Amino acid sequence: MDQLLEKVKFDEKGLVGAIVQDHATREVLMFAWMNRESLGLTLRERRAWYWSRSRGKLWLKGETSGHTQKIHDIRLDCDGDALLLLVEQHGGACHTGFRSCFYRAERNGEWTEDGEKIFSSEQVYGR
Amino acid sequence: MDQLLEKVKFDEKGLVGAIVQDHATREVLMFAWMNRESLGLTLRERRAWYWSRSRGKLWLKGETSGHTQKIHDIRLDCDGDALLLLVEQHGGACHTGFRSCFYRAERNGEWTEDGEKIFSSEQVYGR
Repeated sequence: MDQLLEKVKFDEKGLVGAIVQDHATREVLMFAWMNRESLGLTLRERRAWYWSRSRGKLWLKGETSGHTQKIHDIRLDCDGDALLLLVEQHGGACHTGFRSCFYRAERNGEWTEDGEKIFSSEQVYGR
Repeated sequence: MDQLLEKVKFDEKGLVGAIVQDHATREVLMFAWMNRESLGLTLRERRAWYWSRSRGKLWLKGETSGHTQKIHDIRLDCDGDALLLLVEQHGGACHTGFRSCFYRAERNGEWTEDGEKIFSSEQVYGR
């Protein structure tokens, strides 16, 4: 475990960016941040833990929504400062109800919704 | 153009992270940073421009290597603070010679090379 963690270059805030991709469809689902502790938990438990910069705490993906991410593969980039997680996504990755957080695409000079909405955020989060 | 740029949340350093994915194979190739100017150039020219944090300047992907990235799609995440570029990658995305920068995977507690090497970095960069 330490051998893995020591190769990761955490930034001045102690964070590393993690790209999350569906292991089967290869759709990019989200981008989130990890600190050393959340990466350690993710490696150990094989489910995705992140660091919330806005709330200043660890979060287990799916803890509220049930939309967990089971880890299939974890990859590190050449510089050691970005991670790629290949996951089995239960439900949707995005809190808005879309399967992927990247549901807006550039179309004729505007960001246009272009994604698969798979749940109601009101029903899941009550807001 | 301004309409697109104003929806992007650049961080305190004026940067936004960009995930780069092969539009055909859906392989995640690299992660890089953009400032407002590089995103503007990328949108206008439909080829990928980034901001180098280490060199403190704009860089056109492929300027030295010829391994350019033609833009097929640009997507923005729910929070507006991460971009996803779908590109046509000529040659390799990684300066090490691998097609993807994410050529190391966790295997039995170690980062192990697991990627397609497609060029010699010595031949391309002379180092």
